[in-house]
Amino acid sequence: MAAMKVHGGVLSTATMRVLTCLHEKELEFQFVNVDMSTGEHKREPFLSLNPFGQVPVFEHGDLKLFESRAITKYIAHEYADKGTQLTCQGKALPMLLQWMVVEEQQFEPAASKLVWELVLKPFLGIPVEEAVVEENKDKLAKVLDVYESRLVQSKYLACDCFTLADMHHLPCIDYLMGSEAKALFDSRPHVSAWVEDIRARPAWAKALAIRNK
Amino acid sequence: MAAMKVHGGVLSTATMRVLTCLHEKELEFQFVNVDMSTGEHKREPFLSLNPFGQVPVFEHGDLKLFESRAITKYIAHEYADKGTQLTCQGKALPMLLQWMVVEEQQFEPAASKLVWELVLKPFLGIPVEEAVVEENKDKLAKVLDVYESRLVQSKYLACDCFTLADMHHLPCIDYLMGSEAKALFDSRPHVSAWVEDIRARPAWAKALAIRNK
Repeated sequence: MAAMKVHGGVLSTATMRVLTCLHEKELEFQFVNVDMSTGEHKREPFLSLNPFGQVPVFEHGDLKLFESRAITKYIAHEYADKGTQLTCQGKALPMLLQWMVVEEQQFEPAASKLVWELVLKPFLGIPVEEAVVEENKDKLAKVLDVYESRLVQSKYLACDCFTLADMHHLPCIDYLMGSEAKALFDSRPHVSAWVEDIRARPAWAKALAIRNK
Repeated sequence: MAAMKVHGGVLSTATMRVLTCLHEKELEFQFVNVDMSTGEHKREPFLSLNPFGQVPVFEHGDLKLFESRAITKYIAHEYADKGTQLTCQGKALPMLLQWMVVEEQQFEPAASKLVWELVLKPFLGIPVEEAVVEENKDKLAKVLDVYESRLVQSKYLACDCFTLADMHHLPCIDYLMGSEAKALFDSRPHVSAWVEDIRARPAWAKALAIRNK
């Protein structure tokens, strides 16, 4: 069987999500850097891998898969017996499904805008829009209030085990912990403990090591 | 076992998504109307069902589940042997996962803004923002170009069967077919045939009948 490949960019939160998943599953893979600074992801041959022109793409033999959360769900299903389980069954399954969608629909829209404004724009030398920052800090604060209540009842979002529902948050949260938005997490004790716990995953350190190479 | 209940509003695309799923699965349920015009979804007791204050909520005995796409995935899994299959296995599974995320991440952000501007705002007597309409028509057109290419290869998005990946689009598409955005669908022959096919599902007609009661 051909090697697994991830075509991605190390500044991309979506790429980091997939790299973390592969490390949680203890799978060997090859990282293929896509030079986003020159728009490599918006040209052929990359567009044949993902017509939306976005990283990452997962390639394994004939299988070519895009959208980071589709890739992580596929890997968790296909390699269920390897590494960390990352999913749950029985009564916890509806909670896993629910909190995965909460990450996509409630957390990510506000968090990704804050990553862009507070982390990537300063890094790239682009002026920050303060009104966008304030609007999304307010939105994220409301989302984290719900997370705080949930994490009083449950060690992780879906159940008492670390799952995809937690893992999908890692790349945005890790960026935001280096910004003024850190206070939103720190001021909520159960959210803060959860952030500390998931950032300490060895798989996350291994994903970061690819970025820092 | 207690009856299944859907707490929702009939103008809500997310509510219609869940009602369609229950009809595809030929399941009996009770529809509990949440009066969104008076903000019932932003107050207790509704907030105890969904702390984000959004419809719908699915309730079945002790299980209370929010986020429409989590509810449909749960129903498709839990009642796999009832009604329409709605999922696929084997080689088609990664495609199902991918196209479900495409609907959430690529289609819905543009389509839902157009539903708000072109359908719900006129209905509620709120002025339309033309710049938002134009921006999101451009975005949706690019997404539908990718759909057109996909639907040349495959009768439905994930595989040759109707699945959740198609079904999740129905409520937004049906609204947009009554607006100027209809042209975006009509001008792409495979997209247009797919829209006609999925709008003709008997389960969709049954969901609409609840709205039109």
